[in-house]
Amino acid sequence: MRMYDLIMKKRNGGELSSEEITFLINGYVEGNIPDYQMSAFLMAVYFKGMTEGETLAMTNAVAHSGDMVDLAGIDGIKVDKHSTGGVGDKTTLIIAPIVAACGVKVAKMSGRGLGHTGGTIDKLESIPGMKTSLSREKFFQVVNETGLSVIGQSGNMTPADKKMYALRDVTATVDSIPLIAVSIMGKKLAAGNDCILLDVKTGSGAFMKTVEDSIALAKEMVAIGENAGKRTVALITDMDIPLGHNIGNSLEVIEAVDTLKGNGPDDLTQVCLNLAANMLYLAGKGNLDECMEMAKQAITDGTVLERLVAMVKAQGGDASVIEDTANFAKAPYSCEIPADKTGFITVMDTEKCGIASTLLGAGRETKDSEIDYTAGLILYRKVGDYVEAGEKIAVMYASDETLFANARSVYEDAITIQEEKPEEKPLIFARVTKDAVEKY
Amino acid sequence: MRMYDLIMKKRNGGELSSEEITFLINGYVEGNIPDYQMSAFLMAVYFKGMTEGETLAMTNAVAHSGDMVDLAGIDGIKVDKHSTGGVGDKTTLIIAPIVAACGVKVAKMSGRGLGHTGGTIDKLESIPGMKTSLSREKFFQVVNETGLSVIGQSGNMTPADKKMYALRDVTATVDSIPLIAVSIMGKKLAAGNDCILLDVKTGSGAFMKTVEDSIALAKEMVAIGENAGKRTVALITDMDIPLGHNIGNSLEVIEAVDTLKGNGPDDLTQVCLNLAANMLYLAGKGNLDECMEMAKQAITDGTVLERLVAMVKAQGGDASVIEDTANFAKAPYSCEIPADKTGFITVMDTEKCGIASTLLGAGRETKDSEIDYTAGLILYRKVGDYVEAGEKIAVMYASDETLFANARSVYEDAITIQEEKPEEKPLIFARVTKDAVEKY
Repeated sequence: MRMYDLIMKKRNGGELSSEEITFLINGYVEGNIPDYQMSAFLMAVYFKGMTEGETLAMTNAVAHSGDMVDLAGIDGIKVDKHSTGGVGDKTTLIIAPIVAACGVKVAKMSGRGLGHTGGTIDKLESIPGMKTSLSREKFFQVVNETGLSVIGQSGNMTPADKKMYALRDVTATVDSIPLIAVSIMGKKLAAGNDCILLDVKTGSGAFMKTVEDSIALAKEMVAIGENAGKRTVALITDMDIPLGHNIGNSLEVIEAVDTLKGNGPDDLTQVCLNLAANMLYLAGKGNLDECMEMAKQAITDGTVLERLVAMVKAQGGDASVIEDTANFAKAPYSCEIPADKTGFITVMDTEKCGIASTLLGAGRETKDSEIDYTAGLILYRKVGDYVEAGEKIAVMYASDETLFANARSVYEDAITIQEEKPEEKPLIFARVTKDAVEKY
Repeated sequence: MRMYDLIMKKRNGGELSSEEITFLINGYVEGNIPDYQMSAFLMAVYFKGMTEGETLAMTNAVAHSGDMVDLAGIDGIKVDKHSTGGVGDKTTLIIAPIVAACGVKVAKMSGRGLGHTGGTIDKLESIPGMKTSLSREKFFQVVNETGLSVIGQSGNMTPADKKMYALRDVTATVDSIPLIAVSIMGKKLAAGNDCILLDVKTGSGAFMKTVEDSIALAKEMVAIGENAGKRTVALITDMDIPLGHNIGNSLEVIEAVDTLKGNGPDDLTQVCLNLAANMLYLAGKGNLDECMEMAKQAITDGTVLERLVAMVKAQGGDASVIEDTANFAKAPYSCEIPADKTGFITVMDTEKCGIASTLLGAGRETKDSEIDYTAGLILYRKVGDYVEAGEKIAVMYASDETLFANARSVYEDAITIQEEKPEEKPLIFARVTKDAVEKY
């Protein structure tokens, strides 16, 4: 087998066999296939796409390129959730306790933030003492004892994905739907869960800017998951507006706790209930309506916060900040942003909101940046709200006053205020299963 | 400027500016742009093509990436000729003396053969003592004294083309018409001639298999040449059948000499007269009919062979083999191939004919292979000829009897004999100028 022939085949619109795809991925990881051949192949994939058979084979090869997690040490059905990333997306902190409270184990590996999007691991680490790097045994023990555990990736997982992603990043081949699907699903297959719920974000703060592209990506990922023998469902959820009111690490934990107490903002609560219900559905806890009832009930009866407290304690964290979020350290400086005119907020460019938060110290501009866990924004007014000129629409928090000027100008640039009330848009656009795309 | 942005622009169908193209080519030659970015760019070009402005800018950048030949030391208008390569293509050996005899200087750099196609330099080197590597001064002196000189490329010409071609060769991006045009025309611009005649071969022995593709390539090259200020014309000539009867180095020189004496095969003579007439036309010697008359006259009055003899002598070669081709060394072994049935030869797969010749020792399988100048084939019967089963259709020559078996089986595989006489096809399909495509 020669890589040259595989590039030529893809370039000419042919379909690669499973053996050819495996040869290609293994050869690349082992260094037998050079970057310059791989990048030509990836560009050919950008133009010619991949068949369902090809994406499945590539996902399997990527998953098996490194450590495969075996979750057999945890009893029962394990359900994973993956978000394609957004701003103010603290859903994992809310859903995992809900699902665990309903009797389905969550043994989840999450990532860190980069660029304008946050990461669950950074948010968890804003809890003093919280460990996100556990041994395999400790991880299993926490899940078995508390019903849930969220940790960072460890060991040598999906090296093929890391190497390919780094190459795509410098050769303008990142935004290829089959390649995105392979990258995400490769990591999901390696993570060892039985079922996978995908939260595909769509809009100005998401990687996928349109509902159509988001559905296309969701379909590819659901097909890969199902073909790999995992029950898989995707929800297409809104990221044209930041989710909830809080952006920043401890600020998002605080909002998650509020939501687990039943006091969260409506958009965040609704998205989390839908995600949780679908995870329970995937785990076979009933039909979707029954699962939704179960999730709501869990919040109402107050059992969910206990779950988060138990997990934080089990992972060495100071649970007092969860029991009373007033115990969180606070940023020494704050700065209010007033509306610059009267009218309805019609647009919040969500990527810019995320950049503003990063500029305040809440995110990373490069992999090695230090995070300020107390920094971020609280959005008091969102799209659809009527505001008076001068009224407080947001507050920024930082540990360095000089950061406010830049962040404020980016945030103000993100906001459009107009006379006419904007049309209301759904929070969840569609649900994608192996059989159908249900549009909401 | 970042290479990433240039890849993205091309991938998305944008047009790169002249500055961007120059940055890209220079950065690649200097090693600032890595192979993996260049190969992604080249694959994007494969799918998105290049505009006339882009191909011109890239050709100029490729030409200027190394030494530019300055032919000012040679008086008068200098006309170059380039063939896209074929089997039995000894036209340069015939045209250069004709054009020189008609008063137009030919200062030509030619290549060596690789794979199934031969190279003019190898053919010349079958003449004992012939030097094809001359100093610039000696090259000019030979042209000024004899009217013509054909040498190999020397110095550091078009390193960008060499580096890009090596990359394209392993990334399945060779067969892109704009990239082929840039590669050929970059070398032509660097070679410093005033006018360029392109002989674009078409058919089973050519790089371009269809007339349509050949015309498309010709149009791109003519546009580049004219936009670069060189008078440029292309002929699309047949390579679905080997040109002439002889394939192999000294065998082709012998046939070229026969043709210069007016005793050449009709197809070869016609193609050479047309090419020579167009070169004279480009040099401003008259209209095409007048130039054709001039070329024919040159052969008839016997002045052309003298030109070849003079050039061979000036370049240190033993002209006695030209004056009497019986003086050429002969291969020690020969082997006749009989027709395997009675009927008309309808197909001669020309690439296979070339491979048969290479297998006999006349060509190179790799860059470092040694050539046997005496090896090759003489084709006694060609497409359209009626043959009786058992009749001699070709003779193979080699210095090692064991080579015949393989070569014979490839040659026999190339030949199809059928009952019905095949339709006659033109030798020259079209003439492409900056203003028009004239189909013949």
